[in-house]
Amino acid sequence: MKIAVKKGDDMHLHLRRGQILRSVIGFTSSQFKRAVIMPNTGPPILTAKDAVAYRDEIMQYQVGDFQPLMTIQVTDCTTPAMIEEAKEAGVVAGKVYPQGVTTNSQNGIANFKAIYPALREMQNQQMLLLLHGESPDPEVFCLDREEVFLSTLANLAGDFPELKIVLEHITTEKAVLAVKKFENVAATITAHHLLLTLDDVIGNLISPHNFCKPIAKRPEDRWTLRQAAISGNPKFFYGGDSAPHAKEMKECSNGCAGIFNAPVALPLLAQIFAKYSGFSFLNDFISKFGADFYGLPQTKETIILAEKDWPVPNEYDGIVPFMAGKTLRYQVID
Amino acid sequence: MKIAVKKGDDMHLHLRRGQILRSVIGFTSSQFKRAVIMPNTGPPILTAKDAVAYRDEIMQYQVGDFQPLMTIQVTDCTTPAMIEEAKEAGVVAGKVYPQGVTTNSQNGIANFKAIYPALREMQNQQMLLLLHGESPDPEVFCLDREEVFLSTLANLAGDFPELKIVLEHITTEKAVLAVKKFENVAATITAHHLLLTLDDVIGNLISPHNFCKPIAKRPEDRWTLRQAAISGNPKFFYGGDSAPHAKEMKECSNGCAGIFNAPVALPLLAQIFAKYSGFSFLNDFISKFGADFYGLPQTKETIILAEKDWPVPNEYDGIVPFMAGKTLRYQVID
Repeated sequence: MKIAVKKGDDMHLHLRRGQILRSVIGFTSSQFKRAVIMPNTGPPILTAKDAVAYRDEIMQYQVGDFQPLMTIQVTDCTTPAMIEEAKEAGVVAGKVYPQGVTTNSQNGIANFKAIYPALREMQNQQMLLLLHGESPDPEVFCLDREEVFLSTLANLAGDFPELKIVLEHITTEKAVLAVKKFENVAATITAHHLLLTLDDVIGNLISPHNFCKPIAKRPEDRWTLRQAAISGNPKFFYGGDSAPHAKEMKECSNGCAGIFNAPVALPLLAQIFAKYSGFSFLNDFISKFGADFYGLPQTKETIILAEKDWPVPNEYDGIVPFMAGKTLRYQVID
Repeated sequence: MKIAVKKGDDMHLHLRRGQILRSVIGFTSSQFKRAVIMPNTGPPILTAKDAVAYRDEIMQYQVGDFQPLMTIQVTDCTTPAMIEEAKEAGVVAGKVYPQGVTTNSQNGIANFKAIYPALREMQNQQMLLLLHGESPDPEVFCLDREEVFLSTLANLAGDFPELKIVLEHITTEKAVLAVKKFENVAATITAHHLLLTLDDVIGNLISPHNFCKPIAKRPEDRWTLRQAAISGNPKFFYGGDSAPHAKEMKECSNGCAGIFNAPVALPLLAQIFAKYSGFSFLNDFISKFGADFYGLPQTKETIILAEKDWPVPNEYDGIVPFMAGKTLRYQVID
């Protein structure tokens, strides 16, 4: 059996630079028409100029008509003028990392008031605010960090009512409730958070390839995320948060956070939607709700999946993909 | 500064067999006079004969006057006659693993009623019951497994009021409360559970050398464990649960559970007790309460620690110790 799904939007993607970028870009450009490119590269994307150079680097690979939607990282050094320049250069959003919450976030912010001038300009410029929604307070227990961050989200949503805010890669029931509450807030949901709980990271053996930030939570959180994803609520759309790290940076004494799910994205989403809702809302989840929230035209192309067992390879160019060695029920054939 | 502490008892120790046993035995025999040897070797220690052969293997290394206190694993194949034979052979306790809860527990039990005849005989023979206290139900979320097991503990404590039961390597506030509740129940506490929370496993990077079963829990659980350990309550005594695995079995895509803390045991305990209570109850914790509960004479020897920075080696014979690369404030000098 074949199914046609939209070649849509991955609204949250880490591509890195150089060799890793070259290795991974094709997985996304073959499955998605557009992707929102995260700025926490090393060094980070902080200015219009950085974003343009990064876009040029991405486009030099054979990505067909793939469109990277560029972002800059907003730090306490980001001025309103930098926001204006970024907007002119086609940057769609500013990403904020609280300090130290994930890969390359040492330069993240400790106090949101410090970026209020930048946020005000983003609101003026209709540039979106993308939030890694975890408290940076080292005293906050790992499983509570998203919940603790929700009061910051409430402040931001209230203080900037015209600013479109995306709470990225949500993982908890409480985050789903918070997103529903504020008119100017939406959320991305990854494929892996629809599948995993903390049990898949540490419940049996310890599995670094299922380790990401925010970490997968309890079964009831996963259930709520699935409901949000398949419900047809336009506040929830796909952002894969594919985050490649070399195998030896994962399988070591202190492994990096991030799940490389780009190779399996559409087959996995098809499998999840087939199981929990039928395909009814898959196209909306990957090509309508995100585009609408970003104010972009919806993509029109489709891509063909075959219902055919696909054993996921153990690695691609030294990077272990999500579901490595497992068999998916769909594969991309066109 | 030098301090003398008791050369006491490690009431929970994994030594493995063969090459690993040879590599690790000296760390414990130099710091402890006795240790309770866990039976989940490959193959497991199930009978008096197995236990005697295992003891002989341990004693063939130059362990001085170290005394291994042998255990057998109690499974649903363990008959009362096997218990009687084990007791005659000097086995001090039967260990029960619920099915699949940790390393080499595939043969663990699913239904405790199946071992009631064996438990009755253990009660008759005054052999202790040692419990890995986690629910084997795969539907139970990893962080809830110890708590869910406590109803089983209550049943066992009530059904066998004369059976001495040790809830091993406890990790939660609820377990501490349960242990206090039943007269015939005590508990071991490891050194690493006095130090770690889940944040040290997955809160920043993913750290397989801090991964064990039961996994370290929340800060408030750790606080309660520390209070139990330093309080002088005789129901709580030291069991290190040192569990060596080759480095490549930890730093891989599916790493084994277990923390190899034997090399750092006494220096670390001294550091913890110095910080949280002074040394007042350290000797009781490592040489009195456990011996009393087991009905053994207390050990008399002492061992000298110096207050002197000790950088913990990165590995010993291909096994990464707990606190590798960190600096402890004490070291064993005699």
